[in-house]
Amino acid sequence: MSNGGRGGRKPPLSKDTRLCISLAGRPSNIGTRFHNHLYEVLGLDFLYKAFTTTDIAGAIGGVRALGIRGCSVSMPFKEDVLTLVDEIEPSAQTLRSVNTIVNDDGRLTASNTDYLAVQHLIDGLSTEQSVLIRGSGGMASAVGAAFADRGFVSGTVVARNEQAGRALAQRLGYAYAPDTGGPCTRPADIVVNVTPIGMAGGVEEHDVAFGDSVIREARTVFDVVALPSETPLIAAARAAGVDVITGAQVIALQAAEQFERYTGVRPSDEQIAEASAISRA
Amino acid sequence: MSNGGRGGRKPPLSKDTRLCISLAGRPSNIGTRFHNHLYEVLGLDFLYKAFTTTDIAGAIGGVRALGIRGCSVSMPFKEDVLTLVDEIEPSAQTLRSVNTIVNDDGRLTASNTDYLAVQHLIDGLSTEQSVLIRGSGGMASAVGAAFADRGFVSGTVVARNEQAGRALAQRLGYAYAPDTGGPCTRPADIVVNVTPIGMAGGVEEHDVAFGDSVIREARTVFDVVALPSETPLIAAARAAGVDVITGAQVIALQAAEQFERYTGVRPSDEQIAEASAISRA
Repeated sequence: MSNGGRGGRKPPLSKDTRLCISLAGRPSNIGTRFHNHLYEVLGLDFLYKAFTTTDIAGAIGGVRALGIRGCSVSMPFKEDVLTLVDEIEPSAQTLRSVNTIVNDDGRLTASNTDYLAVQHLIDGLSTEQSVLIRGSGGMASAVGAAFADRGFVSGTVVARNEQAGRALAQRLGYAYAPDTGGPCTRPADIVVNVTPIGMAGGVEEHDVAFGDSVIREARTVFDVVALPSETPLIAAARAAGVDVITGAQVIALQAAEQFERYTGVRPSDEQIAEASAISRA
Repeated sequence: MSNGGRGGRKPPLSKDTRLCISLAGRPSNIGTRFHNHLYEVLGLDFLYKAFTTTDIAGAIGGVRALGIRGCSVSMPFKEDVLTLVDEIEPSAQTLRSVNTIVNDDGRLTASNTDYLAVQHLIDGLSTEQSVLIRGSGGMASAVGAAFADRGFVSGTVVARNEQAGRALAQRLGYAYAPDTGGPCTRPADIVVNVTPIGMAGGVEEHDVAFGDSVIREARTVFDVVALPSETPLIAAARAAGVDVITGAQVIALQAAEQFERYTGVRPSDEQIAEASAISRA
């Protein structure tokens, strides 16, 4: 496009408008609002819309056959799509989990921008520090891999599900410790919550994943929960004067990465922040 | 929808917005403009966008898997899709040609709204009249079938392509006559042009498909060419005081039929006329 896509008026919807979609078991409107807002702001001839499906192979086949430019992938399809694409980037290969597919003229490339976002956010942290990850699901795998791949060798996975927790710890070369419920009292330099504790609307909405002394003694508190953006854990860490990394940052950064892969344009931090706020309003 | 979809403000794009698409070898913007304009006017939470594909089976699989509500089908896919749907209405079965697919929760039903539109437009004409159809392509088949199925028994197919012309005439129970070029001088009560003669941008743009005396002696002149809406043939017929059926009427009516099948809402004739004008602007 003549103005490089930076600013300018978004062209009206036409046959040339490129479509990006998301595929999720339970689609939300967050991605649809986020991407379309930025298309508008940046004057890009794109359109984004959330879909669900009961036939993931057919849906990915449709992405390819219809020339849909990008496809964000959520639960429960993140692993299934691995066999449906042409190329898997290391970010997705390591995790066996995909959240982003880019379609270049029928050639589908899968990546995991959650992993890439976490890697970026922990970039400045000294790898000498100890890491504690609470949780053992898909996002805990992404976070753990990001730390381990970045060179953090001293780590612990604390998980309720012993099988998943031990398996993740083993993959990362970390220790495993059982999650006995309540605030975790095991200290570490960097403590990361990758459980639903503190998530708006959940049964543990008002709980804090780590004990007071753990928070006070940590160098960085990282909460993957993004709703609310100020979780009880993040609030407690800020109150204690501890550095934080928030779930809202992870989501915004992974979305910016996804956005750039789909459109070739990287929004500014301010544009990302505004689009994030609007998409959650 | 609470207001029955008649009027009211179109909701913003969301995960619940229903997508309709078109599939064509060479997509245009006409359908995209037509349908989206009417969604806006009628306050319907729908979105329409044209696509092309090199893999029609994958594309129709994608329509099914992504829950795309409707799919308009153009050349060269009109016959290919017959084997890819679950149900074929008589309009498409007779012609072996589909221009409309409706997706009801994964069940695809194919129809041909060109045929239905022509049937509707000739509804008031006496079936005692003789019919002459000039042309033997896909649209000539649709027009011929509409006449024959409506009970017009006296007909002639005039075609340059002898094989296609004879085959069509035989299917319809009509006579065949060769097309020797120039204005057709064979008279009939109803004469129909289904060739590109008079089409804007074509080599025969300024030609008239029928001779002066044929036009004057006809009861109805029917031109399937829609661009321009006033073809030289239609202009000549009007000048001679002969009733006309225009290609613009066929296109508007088939699009209205398609629109109603996708959305459940039938636009008014005025709304259709306005949307047609806008979509061709």
